[in-house]
Amino acid sequence: MLSSHGEIRSFGDEKYKVVGTRPIRHDGTDKVTGRAVYGGDTRLPGMLYGQVLRSPHAHARIRSIDSSKAEALDGVKSVVTAADLPPTASDEMVDLGEGPARVKFMRDNILATDKVLYRGHAVAGVAATSPHIADEALSLIEVDYEVLPPVVTVLEAMKEGAPLIHEDLTTMELGEDTDKNSNIASHMQHTLGDVEQAMAGAHLTAEFEVHTSSVHQGYIEPQNATAFWNQDGMLTIWTSTQGAFTAQRQLGAILGVPVARIKVVPQEIGGGFGGKIPVYLEPVASLLSRQTGHPVKLIMSRADVFEATGPTPGSYIRVTMGVDSSGKLVAAEAYIAFEAGGYPGSPVFAAAMCVFACYDIPNCLVDFYDVVVNKPRSFAYRAPGSTHVAFAVEKVMDELAAKLGVDALELRIQNAATEGMRRSDGIVYPRIGCKECLEVARDHDHFKTPLEGPNRGRGVAVGYWFNIGFKSSVTASVNNDGSVNLVEGSTDIGGTRTSIAMQFAETLGLAAEDINPSVGDTSAIGYTDVTGGSRVTYATGWAAYEAAQDVKAQMLKRVAMVWEVEDDEVEFDDGVFRHKTDASKSLNFKELAAKLDDTGGPVVGNGSVDPAAGVGGSFCVNIVDLEVDPETGKVDILRFTAIQDAGKAIHPSYVEGQMQGGSVQGIGWGLNEEYFFTDEGRMANSSFLDYRIPTTLDLPMIDTVIVEVPNPGHPFGVRGVGEASIAPPPAAIACAIKNAVGAQLCVLPMRPDRILAALDEAGDRVSVAAG
Amino acid sequence: MLSSHGEIRSFGDEKYKVVGTRPIRHDGTDKVTGRAVYGGDTRLPGMLYGQVLRSPHAHARIRSIDSSKAEALDGVKSVVTAADLPPTASDEMVDLGEGPARVKFMRDNILATDKVLYRGHAVAGVAATSPHIADEALSLIEVDYEVLPPVVTVLEAMKEGAPLIHEDLTTMELGEDTDKNSNIASHMQHTLGDVEQAMAGAHLTAEFEVHTSSVHQGYIEPQNATAFWNQDGMLTIWTSTQGAFTAQRQLGAILGVPVARIKVVPQEIGGGFGGKIPVYLEPVASLLSRQTGHPVKLIMSRADVFEATGPTPGSYIRVTMGVDSSGKLVAAEAYIAFEAGGYPGSPVFAAAMCVFACYDIPNCLVDFYDVVVNKPRSFAYRAPGSTHVAFAVEKVMDELAAKLGVDALELRIQNAATEGMRRSDGIVYPRIGCKECLEVARDHDHFKTPLEGPNRGRGVAVGYWFNIGFKSSVTASVNNDGSVNLVEGSTDIGGTRTSIAMQFAETLGLAAEDINPSVGDTSAIGYTDVTGGSRVTYATGWAAYEAAQDVKAQMLKRVAMVWEVEDDEVEFDDGVFRHKTDASKSLNFKELAAKLDDTGGPVVGNGSVDPAAGVGGSFCVNIVDLEVDPETGKVDILRFTAIQDAGKAIHPSYVEGQMQGGSVQGIGWGLNEEYFFTDEGRMANSSFLDYRIPTTLDLPMIDTVIVEVPNPGHPFGVRGVGEASIAPPPAAIACAIKNAVGAQLCVLPMRPDRILAALDEAGDRVSVAAG
Repeated sequence: MLSSHGEIRSFGDEKYKVVGTRPIRHDGTDKVTGRAVYGGDTRLPGMLYGQVLRSPHAHARIRSIDSSKAEALDGVKSVVTAADLPPTASDEMVDLGEGPARVKFMRDNILATDKVLYRGHAVAGVAATSPHIADEALSLIEVDYEVLPPVVTVLEAMKEGAPLIHEDLTTMELGEDTDKNSNIASHMQHTLGDVEQAMAGAHLTAEFEVHTSSVHQGYIEPQNATAFWNQDGMLTIWTSTQGAFTAQRQLGAILGVPVARIKVVPQEIGGGFGGKIPVYLEPVASLLSRQTGHPVKLIMSRADVFEATGPTPGSYIRVTMGVDSSGKLVAAEAYIAFEAGGYPGSPVFAAAMCVFACYDIPNCLVDFYDVVVNKPRSFAYRAPGSTHVAFAVEKVMDELAAKLGVDALELRIQNAATEGMRRSDGIVYPRIGCKECLEVARDHDHFKTPLEGPNRGRGVAVGYWFNIGFKSSVTASVNNDGSVNLVEGSTDIGGTRTSIAMQFAETLGLAAEDINPSVGDTSAIGYTDVTGGSRVTYATGWAAYEAAQDVKAQMLKRVAMVWEVEDDEVEFDDGVFRHKTDASKSLNFKELAAKLDDTGGPVVGNGSVDPAAGVGGSFCVNIVDLEVDPETGKVDILRFTAIQDAGKAIHPSYVEGQMQGGSVQGIGWGLNEEYFFTDEGRMANSSFLDYRIPTTLDLPMIDTVIVEVPNPGHPFGVRGVGEASIAPPPAAIACAIKNAVGAQLCVLPMRPDRILAALDEAGDRVSVAAG
Repeated sequence: MLSSHGEIRSFGDEKYKVVGTRPIRHDGTDKVTGRAVYGGDTRLPGMLYGQVLRSPHAHARIRSIDSSKAEALDGVKSVVTAADLPPTASDEMVDLGEGPARVKFMRDNILATDKVLYRGHAVAGVAATSPHIADEALSLIEVDYEVLPPVVTVLEAMKEGAPLIHEDLTTMELGEDTDKNSNIASHMQHTLGDVEQAMAGAHLTAEFEVHTSSVHQGYIEPQNATAFWNQDGMLTIWTSTQGAFTAQRQLGAILGVPVARIKVVPQEIGGGFGGKIPVYLEPVASLLSRQTGHPVKLIMSRADVFEATGPTPGSYIRVTMGVDSSGKLVAAEAYIAFEAGGYPGSPVFAAAMCVFACYDIPNCLVDFYDVVVNKPRSFAYRAPGSTHVAFAVEKVMDELAAKLGVDALELRIQNAATEGMRRSDGIVYPRIGCKECLEVARDHDHFKTPLEGPNRGRGVAVGYWFNIGFKSSVTASVNNDGSVNLVEGSTDIGGTRTSIAMQFAETLGLAAEDINPSVGDTSAIGYTDVTGGSRVTYATGWAAYEAAQDVKAQMLKRVAMVWEVEDDEVEFDDGVFRHKTDASKSLNFKELAAKLDDTGGPVVGNGSVDPAAGVGGSFCVNIVDLEVDPETGKVDILRFTAIQDAGKAIHPSYVEGQMQGGSVQGIGWGLNEEYFFTDEGRMANSSFLDYRIPTTLDLPMIDTVIVEVPNPGHPFGVRGVGEASIAPPPAAIACAIKNAVGAQLCVLPMRPDRILAALDEAGDRVSVAAG
């Protein structure tokens, strides 16, 4: 089913001129002609090249580092270690705009102090006149390690008597500090109603335990950073980052420098998916630049990206849910344990928010654990934590449907979350589109078309992401030809230059092409949080709307000046300034722009927002058809449909792109992607050859349906669409495999060998008719 | 007299904390360490190098251009001529922010169409893979010229029967079009009172006729431009320009492209002085880029800079002035004819505004002429036109003093322009500092110290520049550490990043070091006119003040939010937000900045101004002591004092720098600098070896006195100081030479041979005691 555009099902009634159209993106030509400048393209006069020495051990104490031989190598200009970072009090915190973070952990993750906590952990940085010399210098740095036993899975790490990764880490238990040394950084809990009683009274229940592996975001562009620490104390960083201001704050905290002295210039970014929020190379490049007086550039190898940047955590999850005899969910319980990696801070909190988010369940208990292990510090990856829990919950839902003897999709519709429902974490939903997405799925051609053939099965699943608001700034300057320059602080990953420009254009009756959007560095635009959490089209788009309102108000005064009337005699309607009573007087935006020179000069408008309320979550439903080869265990995806609530889709093509991209990543996670760790805690597949992400050859067209249930908390009803689509695919695939061949898959990825093993366990490796 | 700082004489009583101090400039380290990026530093992937073919003739018709051989040369990618520019209606005008300009003339000055009008006139552009290949290609372009007789001086060009430079140019006579073909583009007139009657009734009169040569601005950095015309139609220009937005508008007009499609990125600039307002290479680079699909870079040679960019015009001026028996000026008459160069538009209008600006004269007649000649199109050079007329007027003043038998400085003080006086062009002065400067000169140690020795003389002169306002925009973003990022549209030539930042800091109780100023490109900031007319510290500083007011108003609301009080209970005083009645409540700016994250997010403020009224002119007085070698005619400057009204000096060191720089340029113009033209109209001295600008070895320390007569038309009393200082030096030197050796010099520069000739004319080449 090939079509240039996917389907849109709208549940709103607003009519727009620009919003909802599909203009060519402003940065399109630069991107397709190779002119766009990425971090790796940075070249500065006198630039040096850096490399990072990384730990070969997953867990070891550093007895000493001797860099004298490396420093003596011709062409080597500097070697830095953690000793070159300023000391940090162990309880010092920094607010990164996304919440507070512990500086000591951030710092130790940049350059290890006394211990290395994962293979690939940075130990020293070298700057030299060529990358090859820097590389050679690494081999001359002598590190004396005391190798310690590694702990690489969450369940092992939680065991009594497990080797302690941080000798001084004590467990935070339900919000209270304890004095218990443990790898469990924190145990948290959400409760709603009385789950024990409700579960006991349930008509029937189902339970699954699932395991997931570390999975990488798999962005094409490796981490990079170039730093120049000027002799006047000003530090400039060129880097591909999801958030220039967040990088600035991290650098300020790690380097002990006021943010006023740091400028971060965000370059184009070749994918991030959450993995380019934390800094890695930036502080090392900065130290090397300060020592040498030269700009210093660092780029990670692919192996470094896998071994030393933050994947999404591996996890152990157990979910139990109960229904009454009508099929109504009455109780749900979850135990969620996430591998934080070397330092605390996994997205398990987000997982707990998402676990039962799709269903109206009056009694819930969610226990969740953040656990350190000897793996790279985990970080955000598209709807962080939601995919893990959807895998468990949706398997339970299918099992409940089977036990009840009802259709699994109908059971989901029956129990779908709706406006006014209270979630297990206390959130009460505003208008949401969960049920609409499920109903669109039920009515979709894909669902209504029978699937035939041996070893084939269909699965359905739903996933959720709550989306975030946070701070954004946009500045708009009107040109005298009626075009407008927008400067925004949000790194453009998915076409947001255009989706933001469109909201500005809509507000003032302009075309998307009339707007020149650009992404400013930290000295050029007001504070703006990361490009993440599906927030940019929502929050920065809103800032653009506010900037347009500011421009409109100023322009209206100019109209009054031109007509020599009072301000309140002028109104703006449908792109035109009109006199309220004298119909002969009207000026459109462009006509008025030409008069700015003579009416007081430039018009510049600002919009800054921090929408705490108003954020609207997004739900995504998948229908997947697949075929299992019972001899090899290989799965072929035959047909895949993603149905997601976008609120209002500003630029449908980019919404579809997000849906398709998220689906593909979810499919990869479901079937192929995982970190293989050796017993010594070494990643055995740190290349794109061995770490297998899906390609177009592995996949059918990903069909999309954009469901538009407008978000009342945004001027144009936007929700944010970048993440929910990654949550349901592994679950949908697992359900489809079960339906295809009867195998119950409880470990991600659902590799051929695991499918074969599950078939053996199911007792038959014979064909099962499509369910 | 060596001192790190010059003297300041203040006539105002405002007290400031930051304004008036001397912080280190924000761009200082980059400039002194060679890190600052100038236009010549531009390097882009795939960049080609261009060269421009220029006319060897001062006046010729182009019969044909054959570029086929050049195009066939290996490595040549494109050849462009005027035929590649879009046609332009002869009466099409464009507003460049400084007033309207005729597009046809601008266009023909970029690439000659049917005629070349001066030697060096651009005829064709070439892009190649190296500058050397491009250079070689120039020699392969065959241009068939019909050589015409050149006219290179204004008086020749005005003669009946002179060769016509533009066959279709008709004289504009007192604002009315005529059908008279002539090299006189326009004749204008200012009248005040009845000059004929007043002159007839004068007690005595004096008259001088003077001639001045073309003089170049002499900036160190040659013109440069790199263009990339993207396949989506977006044109980006990197160039060292005095005004990115003005360049954008010129390019739009010449290339027939909406400004929305053009982005101009202003690089650092190595001097401009008015000469880097017009575009030269930018359109050629743009055409070459469009044809090749590559970025194309062009840099002028020094000879190109002299021969093809706009010097200040040569001129002929006659001034007659009359006094009554008390020494009061009663009448003044001026005839001013300026060499516009190949196209109309000399600064003769400004000369007419300035000619009698220093004196209160009730009856004036000023006739002024803009005349085309076969020289490069003249453009602005520091106080354009004012130096020319000061040379004539101040000689007359000295002559009147001599005839009256009074001190020449006292005569100037007696007749000095003051508040309320009407000027010959109709302007009525607000508060000005002319008399204050003259009185400070009279009371200065330099003036009171007798000058002794043979062939030595002292001269005094006063000059004026009216300054301009025009449009400026500044955007301010508050960081959470209380620092503020400023983005401004004004190219920083003389330290204005700092002088603008200081005005912002003063307004909010911050330090200059708390501000991070940067210069934005045309997509990053609101429209801002050129850095010129001494307007930046005045107008862009005012925009910064307005941006600070905007920030203050927003911050005040945040304070109210923090304290949970009404907005109107909060006031801002001396850098601190206070509760009006509860003295326990106060927050300074930095404390409050740390609370922005929790009170609604970013604070961004804008200021945009277009101060039509309020601009305050600046006067400069020189006292110069010199010695003439009667054998060789060489002049040595012994002591030089510049006394100028700055209004309020924001950063006194940069005011002094402007005064010293203007003085040195005036001295060079007075003694050494001129274009030598051969009879064929060829410049014979187009190198810094032969075109002699003064160096430190030629000069004493230039002492300065900043006079502060606050401008009531600016929040901090700023006037603008970049220009007036160039006006008086040639006049002061001429008066000093007269006083030293009795020679009356009426032609600039006052070369040794002219001094010897004047001594011969005066009848004696013997020593004359210092006057």
